[in-house]
Amino acid sequence: MGSKMLRGRFKGEMSPKLKEYTSSIDSDKDMFLEDIWGSTAHVVMLARQGIINPKEAARITAALEKIKDAYQKGTYKLKAEQEDIHLNIENAISKECGPNTGGKMHTARSRNDQVLTASRLHLRAESLEIMKNVLELQRTLLGLGEKYIEQLMPGFTHMQHAQPITAGYWLTSYASSLGRDYERLESAYARINLSPLGAGALSGTSFPIDRKYTAKLLGFDGLQEHALDTVSTRDITIELVSAAAILMTNLSKISEDLIIMSTKEFGYIEFSDAYATGSSIMPQKKNPDLAELVRGKTGRVIGALMQILTVTKGIPAGYNRDLQEDRAYLWSSLAAVKNSLIVLEEGLKDIKIDKERMETVTYSDYSTATELANYLVRKEGMAFREAYDLTGGAVKDLISKGKDFRDVKYLSDVLKKEGIDISDKELYDVLDPGKAVYRNNSIGGCSPTEVARMIKDMREAIKERGDRLNGRNLKIEAAKKMTEKAVNELI
Amino acid sequence: MGSKMLRGRFKGEMSPKLKEYTSSIDSDKDMFLEDIWGSTAHVVMLARQGIINPKEAARITAALEKIKDAYQKGTYKLKAEQEDIHLNIENAISKECGPNTGGKMHTARSRNDQVLTASRLHLRAESLEIMKNVLELQRTLLGLGEKYIEQLMPGFTHMQHAQPITAGYWLTSYASSLGRDYERLESAYARINLSPLGAGALSGTSFPIDRKYTAKLLGFDGLQEHALDTVSTRDITIELVSAAAILMTNLSKISEDLIIMSTKEFGYIEFSDAYATGSSIMPQKKNPDLAELVRGKTGRVIGALMQILTVTKGIPAGYNRDLQEDRAYLWSSLAAVKNSLIVLEEGLKDIKIDKERMETVTYSDYSTATELANYLVRKEGMAFREAYDLTGGAVKDLISKGKDFRDVKYLSDVLKKEGIDISDKELYDVLDPGKAVYRNNSIGGCSPTEVARMIKDMREAIKERGDRLNGRNLKIEAAKKMTEKAVNELI
Amino acid sequence: MGSKMLRGRFKGEMSPKLKEYTSSIDSDKDMFLEDIWGSTAHVVMLARQGIINPKEAARITAALEKIKDAYQKGTYKLKAEQEDIHLNIENAISKECGPNTGGKMHTARSRNDQVLTASRLHLRAESLEIMKNVLELQRTLLGLGEKYIEQLMPGFTHMQHAQPITAGYWLTSYASSLGRDYERLESAYARINLSPLGAGALSGTSFPIDRKYTAKLLGFDGLQEHALDTVSTRDITIELVSAAAILMTNLSKISEDLIIMSTKEFGYIEFSDAYATGSSIMPQKKNPDLAELVRGKTGRVIGALMQILTVTKGIPAGYNRDLQEDRAYLWSSLAAVKNSLIVLEEGLKDIKIDKERMETVTYSDYSTATELANYLVRKEGMAFREAYDLTGGAVKDLISKGKDFRDVKYLSDVLKKEGIDISDKELYDVLDPGKAVYRNNSIGGCSPTEVARMIKDMREAIKERGDRLNGRNLKIEAAKKMTEKAVNELI
Amino acid sequence: MGSKMLRGRFKGEMSPKLKEYTSSIDSDKDMFLEDIWGSTAHVVMLARQGIINPKEAARITAALEKIKDAYQKGTYKLKAEQEDIHLNIENAISKECGPNTGGKMHTARSRNDQVLTASRLHLRAESLEIMKNVLELQRTLLGLGEKYIEQLMPGFTHMQHAQPITAGYWLTSYASSLGRDYERLESAYARINLSPLGAGALSGTSFPIDRKYTAKLLGFDGLQEHALDTVSTRDITIELVSAAAILMTNLSKISEDLIIMSTKEFGYIEFSDAYATGSSIMPQKKNPDLAELVRGKTGRVIGALMQILTVTKGIPAGYNRDLQEDRAYLWSSLAAVKNSLIVLEEGLKDIKIDKERMETVTYSDYSTATELANYLVRKEGMAFREAYDLTGGAVKDLISKGKDFRDVKYLSDVLKKEGIDISDKELYDVLDPGKAVYRNNSIGGCSPTEVARMIKDMREAIKERGDRLNGRNLKIEAAKKMTEKAVNELI
Repeated sequence: MGSKMLRGRFKGEMSPKLKEYTSSIDSDKDMFLEDIWGSTAHVVMLARQGIINPKEAARITAALEKIKDAYQKGTYKLKAEQEDIHLNIENAISKECGPNTGGKMHTARSRNDQVLTASRLHLRAESLEIMKNVLELQRTLLGLGEKYIEQLMPGFTHMQHAQPITAGYWLTSYASSLGRDYERLESAYARINLSPLGAGALSGTSFPIDRKYTAKLLGFDGLQEHALDTVSTRDITIELVSAAAILMTNLSKISEDLIIMSTKEFGYIEFSDAYATGSSIMPQKKNPDLAELVRGKTGRVIGALMQILTVTKGIPAGYNRDLQEDRAYLWSSLAAVKNSLIVLEEGLKDIKIDKERMETVTYSDYSTATELANYLVRKEGMAFREAYDLTGGAVKDLISKGKDFRDVKYLSDVLKKEGIDISDKELYDVLDPGKAVYRNNSIGGCSPTEVARMIKDMREAIKERGDRLNGRNLKIEAAKKMTEKAVNELI
Repeated sequence: MGSKMLRGRFKGEMSPKLKEYTSSIDSDKDMFLEDIWGSTAHVVMLARQGIINPKEAARITAALEKIKDAYQKGTYKLKAEQEDIHLNIENAISKECGPNTGGKMHTARSRNDQVLTASRLHLRAESLEIMKNVLELQRTLLGLGEKYIEQLMPGFTHMQHAQPITAGYWLTSYASSLGRDYERLESAYARINLSPLGAGALSGTSFPIDRKYTAKLLGFDGLQEHALDTVSTRDITIELVSAAAILMTNLSKISEDLIIMSTKEFGYIEFSDAYATGSSIMPQKKNPDLAELVRGKTGRVIGALMQILTVTKGIPAGYNRDLQEDRAYLWSSLAAVKNSLIVLEEGLKDIKIDKERMETVTYSDYSTATELANYLVRKEGMAFREAYDLTGGAVKDLISKGKDFRDVKYLSDVLKKEGIDISDKELYDVLDPGKAVYRNNSIGGCSPTEVARMIKDMREAIKERGDRLNGRNLKIEAAKKMTEKAVNELI
Repeated sequence: MGSKMLRGRFKGEMSPKLKEYTSSIDSDKDMFLEDIWGSTAHVVMLARQGIINPKEAARITAALEKIKDAYQKGTYKLKAEQEDIHLNIENAISKECGPNTGGKMHTARSRNDQVLTASRLHLRAESLEIMKNVLELQRTLLGLGEKYIEQLMPGFTHMQHAQPITAGYWLTSYASSLGRDYERLESAYARINLSPLGAGALSGTSFPIDRKYTAKLLGFDGLQEHALDTVSTRDITIELVSAAAILMTNLSKISEDLIIMSTKEFGYIEFSDAYATGSSIMPQKKNPDLAELVRGKTGRVIGALMQILTVTKGIPAGYNRDLQEDRAYLWSSLAAVKNSLIVLEEGLKDIKIDKERMETVTYSDYSTATELANYLVRKEGMAFREAYDLTGGAVKDLISKGKDFRDVKYLSDVLKKEGIDISDKELYDVLDPGKAVYRNNSIGGCSPTEVARMIKDMREAIKERGDRLNGRNLKIEAAKKMTEKAVNELI
Repeated sequence: MGSKMLRGRFKGEMSPKLKEYTSSIDSDKDMFLEDIWGSTAHVVMLARQGIINPKEAARITAALEKIKDAYQKGTYKLKAEQEDIHLNIENAISKECGPNTGGKMHTARSRNDQVLTASRLHLRAESLEIMKNVLELQRTLLGLGEKYIEQLMPGFTHMQHAQPITAGYWLTSYASSLGRDYERLESAYARINLSPLGAGALSGTSFPIDRKYTAKLLGFDGLQEHALDTVSTRDITIELVSAAAILMTNLSKISEDLIIMSTKEFGYIEFSDAYATGSSIMPQKKNPDLAELVRGKTGRVIGALMQILTVTKGIPAGYNRDLQEDRAYLWSSLAAVKNSLIVLEEGLKDIKIDKERMETVTYSDYSTATELANYLVRKEGMAFREAYDLTGGAVKDLISKGKDFRDVKYLSDVLKKEGIDISDKELYDVLDPGKAVYRNNSIGGCSPTEVARMIKDMREAIKERGDRLNGRNLKIEAAKKMTEKAVNELI
């Protein structure tokens, strides 16, 4: 059976090559348990609505439970020739309960809404995990931000020293980006957690089903109503993958920074031994593979996004078999996201910052030049462009002499030639990066006071989001229990 | 000047090839007016905070106004050698007010936050347009849905007749998808309409600026606070493009359907002459170019998404010049979205549906076979799989005899042989597509009653969204007036 | 051991999460046998060059052989905690021969060139398979082309009937496209089949290795010389995936045509039962899943292309761990290509063409209108645009009267009013699609004579390519034997 | 006229919105001159074959010449409402020669093959430019490679110092990659330079055209024969874009290296002032915008590749309007490639390498550790893994003591404790990077001798390719003259 299922009107078997080709077991098996849950809820509802009788329903749900146990113990074997997990399970049920009873499980349902239900439940679980991991990484970043809130370091643009900042400011910038990633995930979740069950093949059903009840049993927040829309589209999946892809570009930025800052030349940071890797022939190496792989796995998620966008481009309404490919790289790419967040969080938590190196470097560049220009604007009423040109000239002079801003005396002489008279002390104050970072206290600026304020605000947002996330998880747990209870009450 | 700007510490000119290569005027020019508005608000704020004096501010804003007028009249010429619109405008200002005054416009600002401000304002305008067009297309689809709410047509899966539905049901499925597209656009908008102005180069500024005030003058709903995060990332842009790409896959589905249904073979629909095109050598042709181009332009938006994801992958924190490329295909792809929505809406509004053809076809296929199987389940208490197999066998028999369900007599004989006794009248009722569509009244099903309910609900949602959209546009108009007023009050 | 390998300078173990994260066993396992072959050739060469002694070499190669046997029998178990297949094998060797001997296998080699060697060997095998399948599909298409060389059918542009063609012409157009796909694959092959072995970590080695000898043992056509270039780049892989992606867009076109032409409305073709699938609830359905999946799997290959392009964008020279991700979707996407070619070839071979339907449809459209215009140009010396307008007007008239070109009388009257006098017989000849297709005998045109010529030429090209392909396979077989022989001669 | 062209059978005008939407003038205008050439060759052939008379042909070609002159002088204005450049030109011709004569230009041709011809000619020109620029960049890289053939620098893997190499070796690795890029471009060229002219709308033509003759006049190397294949596919364009995208990933690697190596921390290289850019508010900045933009523009080409792959996915055979979008980002992305090659070549030519810094850094790391391990293998007959572990241990010891390999004494003591007795001199020789680089003289290794050999070989390949390229350009020039001559001989 199984391979012969769904071939009512055909003469003969399907070509073995085609059978193999059409199988989706590889991308289905991740949602095995979700399919069982979906079928259980469906059968409970069928009984409740009087569409099948409670005894049969009880036998089917018991069989489903048995398969679930076998699967969890690893004793259940999926048969590739049975096309997908859904037919695998249906076959097993029929074997268990006899075709007469087992054959009733699929009443008032189509594989179209069945598959969507299982995959929506799995998408939901993956989303919640990713969301949890984002919050965790944010928490770690804010902790580090607080720890290094006064630690001077160069701020970069074009990878050149631009203006002095603090390590706390740098690290919290990542947390800030991740906040938007979280918002996108949460926004996608609102569309993910809607029940497709009951959409049927494309037009609903003539059986008196109760879609709201199955949605409740499965912990959905509502229904995706229009049946034809439901079976024809995959935009909900694409939205999640796209939020994940954007998140990965943000993680790839963190990775790139970590890789560069842990070079011998930069020497700003060092991964702990537990988060670094060695070389197969160069025993002296300590490699930031963690960050390189996060950067590399960005490709996985962008690739998965392009894959599914390609699939959905230009196919007609109604279910088309192309849509089976919506999961081709889906679970693998979501796993990449989940795990990238975890290893990055772990690796960052243990990271060693070379405080002295960071500070020394900051004092030896010209990155407070903007401060000097700003000072001239404020103090001398100069136009910014004029101050800019003058300061630029001074820097050129210093470079040619091999000097930097720490040589206040020399600099003040240069400025005097331009008619600017500043006391050495004042000049020192203007140019001292340690003082400069405190002055940038515009909203969102690098001043430690402002950073502390942002940390506080972001923590509050995280707290709130974490609470909401817990609420979602609890609701799902409750739904599982409700399903169990309903099963038990069948007889 | 201009080409020499920003070269304080350098000896000599930039290579002409490089100057051309680094220019971003092509992708900047669309946001010329937004840059003027951004600078105006900035200067007003500088004066209000006492950073520059009101007289100078008035001279600068007057000059900005003058340039704006020239631009709108088409008399202003952008100079490519001045790298971007921002330096073009700054140069013009300095020429107009003298470098002493003009040079003050850029106080307490960097090109980084300046460019972001202009591009955020333009993104916002484009988003609102796209949102408006989505609502418009939904309205038209719902209107059509109502008009054809009882018009029978085949429902397809795998492009094969599956179950009878109505044209109203089919058309409203598109409106339903578009509802999610709208939600995504609105969700992106929440992150788009935040002010980046005041982020400076990467760390805020030491000038006592008022970010909230400029945000208000520019009609933003709030601030994007963390300055380093603000200048380093483009996820907000990517999110919009990604929502647009998903929307386009939905439009490409509509297009595919329209193309196929307007073939000679299908003959279900026909574009009006104003929305069809001819051939350069085949005078008899009537081509659905409209739909083909919408399908084709999907590539533009997916390509733009891939382009910007590639740009942002793996670049370090802080502004990097790569980010200039965030607009490489941006405006062109958003224009494709805006216009695809418009032409599709126009083309659909006028579309001719061949009612007779649709109905005849529906009556001559076997698409109520599921209904028969369901009936056997309900009436005979058969397991669905058994009913499925039996019905499949009957269809096979009919096909081999060249008959269809309209030959109720023959079919009832076939069923009798299987021990099923149904009166001809009952069989007719079960198999009549016109009756069948009414029976599918599960939530989201194709029954006209249910479709009417969904139309009502979707219209309410559209109404609400339209109101919110109007509110946004009004707020922006008010902000423009507020800026004008503040400019007038400078002196 | 194993998990501790390569951690010479580190204190403590790697984080378990990171170990799991960095593992590449999933994408490596497909090239297990190739890694064994690569190591065998390397060890034979080391002995031949006197770098290790022959006895040790013999022990190592014997151990490699043993592992290979175990693997082929399915008794070898890969350990995920040993990061990749290479360390798995190295560990097994050391266990088998003792660390003293086993530890010599990796002399004068790095994991960088080792992995590249295995993956190049596997890429090569996959390329050859794909090439073989392309030729097979072309052969089938040309066979069909010959069979239906005179079978009339409408030629489409914009999915509208444009000009009459033959089914043979239509089917050979696919074969023609595939010819270019083959060329691209063959061109990529020239860069794939070059040996990376001996590149070391990034700079070659100070051991006196013989790269040309290992290349010969492994059946490579030459060397990829520059070691730093070799380890830093993946353009060779990308090129293959990109050729495969382009090939898939061509297959997606075939699929789209097959899907549309097998709708009830078109009814031009029908898949045989062995190549069609059924529905889970609609027993009457016969679905072209085969073609839908080929179209859908296009996404897999395009996604894989985008994945690997993303990975390689902007990473520095030298090996970076990101590059491990070059195989993330690689084998899965190449398998999709291989199998799509196979099922399409099988499905097409058995396809049923409804000859009568195709012919009838062709006679009932206006698709010889261009012929009429051309005739007027030739016969009446009319300008083409004038003839075009006149013919267009006539078509408009016929449509309004519900007539088509078969009503020659009516048409000749219409033409007469425009001052054109053509005998009915001549008009019939001009407009008869069966005659028209024969007239288009410009090079590459649809005339059966011309199609026959193209079939002959394409068959010759296929023959030549097939011979070259065989030569490549034979060379590889010979290299395997040469390696075996060299192993046997070690002692 | 124009807007009304091609509307023979329609009532009324096209919707203005749709007219704007369907216009392709933006992406066509780049190939204006090529369209003129294509039409000229076509008309000459029509006359030669007696399809139109020579006098009319002469009038048409004269008009084409006139339009060309106007266009080149900038006095010709394209009208957007005339859909594309082809109809613009056809209208201008009809105005110039009268519709009777002008209307004959389009005899035996369709817009399908006409557009393909113009775009193939332009693709060809762009390809040749890109190829030229690749050779130029290779030449510069090899020149630099020669100049710095003995300049020590650290070789990186994972951005960590791995083994000492030379700057010459590093720079030639880029030239080596570019060699494959060239091969891909040349391979694509073989398919690009084939004439589509004469394919007609989809099935050739019944006029006695001479496709080989027009191909000759247009400098094509042969024909793309099968007409339906020719008009249906765009794989030739995709292949070029894909070769270009791969090339850009290679350029993005060069860019990433240049950006990192020109940081203050690395200080290995410095762009000359003419190739660096400044900041709008930080006068001390010297930014490697050049390299950042090359890295960023990689997105443009990958995005364009994705765009066109999306367009061609799943559309049916025959011309579909979607295909117009094959040029949406095409010219812009090819321009990005051309110019990236140019600015990179210019910028590299002038680059300053800090020789002392590079050397000092190389001496102060542990990057000859592999050398030490190899030495122990050779000298002590140790297994490589044992030597690796021992060397790793020694490095760990040195790091903990803050020492490096320059402290030979200390190291030899450490080794003695492990029972290894090496004289200080020998140890020094083994560990000296200057000596080490010379030892890696396996094929493709970093030894200056080997690098010199590779430079010589690559130069020979470049010479040969350059000659072939010149040949192509000369052939095209000759074809232009041949067309002119044929035009002149018309009367």
